[in-house]
Amino acid sequence: MRFGLDIMGGDFAPAATIDGAVAALDEIGAGNGIVLFGPETLIREELRQRGVSEDRFEIVHCPQVIAMEEKPLKALSEKPDSGIATGLRMLAQGQIDAFSSAGNSGALLAGAVTSLKCIPGVLRPCTCTMIPQEDGSYSLLLDIGTTPDAKPEVMVQFAIIGSLYSRYVLGVADPGVGLLNVGTEDGKGNLQCQTVFPLLKACGHIRFTGNMEPRELFKNRADVVVADGFVGNIVLKEIETFYRLIQKRGISDPLFDRLNYEIYGGSPILGVNAPVVLGHGISSPLAIKNMLLQSKKMGEQGLVDALRRLFAA
Amino acid sequence: MRFGLDIMGGDFAPAATIDGAVAALDEIGAGNGIVLFGPETLIREELRQRGVSEDRFEIVHCPQVIAMEEKPLKALSEKPDSGIATGLRMLAQGQIDAFSSAGNSGALLAGAVTSLKCIPGVLRPCTCTMIPQEDGSYSLLLDIGTTPDAKPEVMVQFAIIGSLYSRYVLGVADPGVGLLNVGTEDGKGNLQCQTVFPLLKACGHIRFTGNMEPRELFKNRADVVVADGFVGNIVLKEIETFYRLIQKRGISDPLFDRLNYEIYGGSPILGVNAPVVLGHGISSPLAIKNMLLQSKKMGEQGLVDALRRLFAA
Repeated sequence: MRFGLDIMGGDFAPAATIDGAVAALDEIGAGNGIVLFGPETLIREELRQRGVSEDRFEIVHCPQVIAMEEKPLKALSEKPDSGIATGLRMLAQGQIDAFSSAGNSGALLAGAVTSLKCIPGVLRPCTCTMIPQEDGSYSLLLDIGTTPDAKPEVMVQFAIIGSLYSRYVLGVADPGVGLLNVGTEDGKGNLQCQTVFPLLKACGHIRFTGNMEPRELFKNRADVVVADGFVGNIVLKEIETFYRLIQKRGISDPLFDRLNYEIYGGSPILGVNAPVVLGHGISSPLAIKNMLLQSKKMGEQGLVDALRRLFAA
Repeated sequence: MRFGLDIMGGDFAPAATIDGAVAALDEIGAGNGIVLFGPETLIREELRQRGVSEDRFEIVHCPQVIAMEEKPLKALSEKPDSGIATGLRMLAQGQIDAFSSAGNSGALLAGAVTSLKCIPGVLRPCTCTMIPQEDGSYSLLLDIGTTPDAKPEVMVQFAIIGSLYSRYVLGVADPGVGLLNVGTEDGKGNLQCQTVFPLLKACGHIRFTGNMEPRELFKNRADVVVADGFVGNIVLKEIETFYRLIQKRGISDPLFDRLNYEIYGGSPILGVNAPVVLGHGISSPLAIKNMLLQSKKMGEQGLVDALRRLFAA
């Protein structure tokens, strides 16, 4: 399989992206390859400086660059030869098997939806992240910002998509799904949660384990934690805030250390017709490497096909 | 002034409530008094055990007790002689000047609204909490759970009520108000935030300082942070979760230590016609003491009158 990477994405590109791509080479697996999307001369020069042979990568020349602050749709239409637009186009055409970028998140998301389209039956895409648990395991939180104001039927789809991600990519045999809420009793919460709760309970594609409160976020209460895109984004950003406060104080701790986003690489965009991973703007080489390896897992484990089969049924 | 306390409220009542009330005696101020609501014999016995003279308190005998898990409205109607029902009734009649309870929060809230009524012009009540800031100051977060699915005009009222609390109770001369959101640019967020933003901007009763992200929660970005009751509750519970994780690890730090709810005492219920403070279920004697002193501040600083004047205008 061939895994694409946007070389110009992220605050520390291209140094961090090239370093991350080089670091991923050893783990990408025999028969697999990494495809670098970006200005050709720049990529060759960066590789030369590191003493890395060009032959170890494929390079797709993309002369245009979408900057972090550009308006997504405008940038995509004006820069068809950017790494993001080109990578997603080649992914849609099956010329690569997954694509990752730590660049303009709005452009990557909008491009993923327009180029790849949502899987038939999927109403809205979503994005997920991993939350380390006190017992050493991980939970999946979704949606973390792609779809705020999610309609109840969309929230149910998040639960289904998250369950499949948990099974296929994380290897959890029978994932439990919790609904993030302000109380644990049935009927608790805002109108959205009150409406979603019975739908999740009735959904045959998931193992629903009920409402869960933020105090259970690190207690392995559920393998998959479902939230509206607005709420999920607030929750994630609050975790990141605490991680930064802890880092600032030089506190080292097994759980807190695992809050480091670099370990996870990026946030998969789910519900579209191919694997796409969105990296953090401040992605380090380690984060870029793990983002590539995450896209590889998504590609190899057949997640998109599994989602297609389920939503076609 | 006379400040009422529900002796039977909280997981550690009556030991913690009596200890807290005794501890508050020295700071309640000359001419002021603490009124204990609960079973008379029990209160007298608890005071006797501590060697505290009964004469230092007023006691209002309340033979009934609303337990933590009871349904609020049912409990209030079936137990008119409980501490919560009696205290709120006497507060409504002006026989006491403020009332606090660490008991059944639903019953206290429902009771506050039915007994005291909302201030004319106030659409829905709200509850607030203090968030310690890295620079040593505090921000006020509201609503923390009383009104989920707040309509845009209700969110604007939260901003106004929070501003007045900040001015009258916390002594901030010209409080800035931020809207908790997933991005800082205008127009960001879910439909609720998108609708509320221009209303806050146009509101003449507050100094609106724009959207703020969770990463700014501890950076003294705003004196008053406005959120929907669902979102605010999730944010607060996540802070409490981190505080517990930090406590569990024995980490001591000037900022993290100030996340301890005991320092603040309780969450004021705002928008009703008299000062009411809701304590944490796990309230310690220190938390009870500070809850009483907080109700005293609310009573003495004329917050309710200021709110009445503003909403009457």
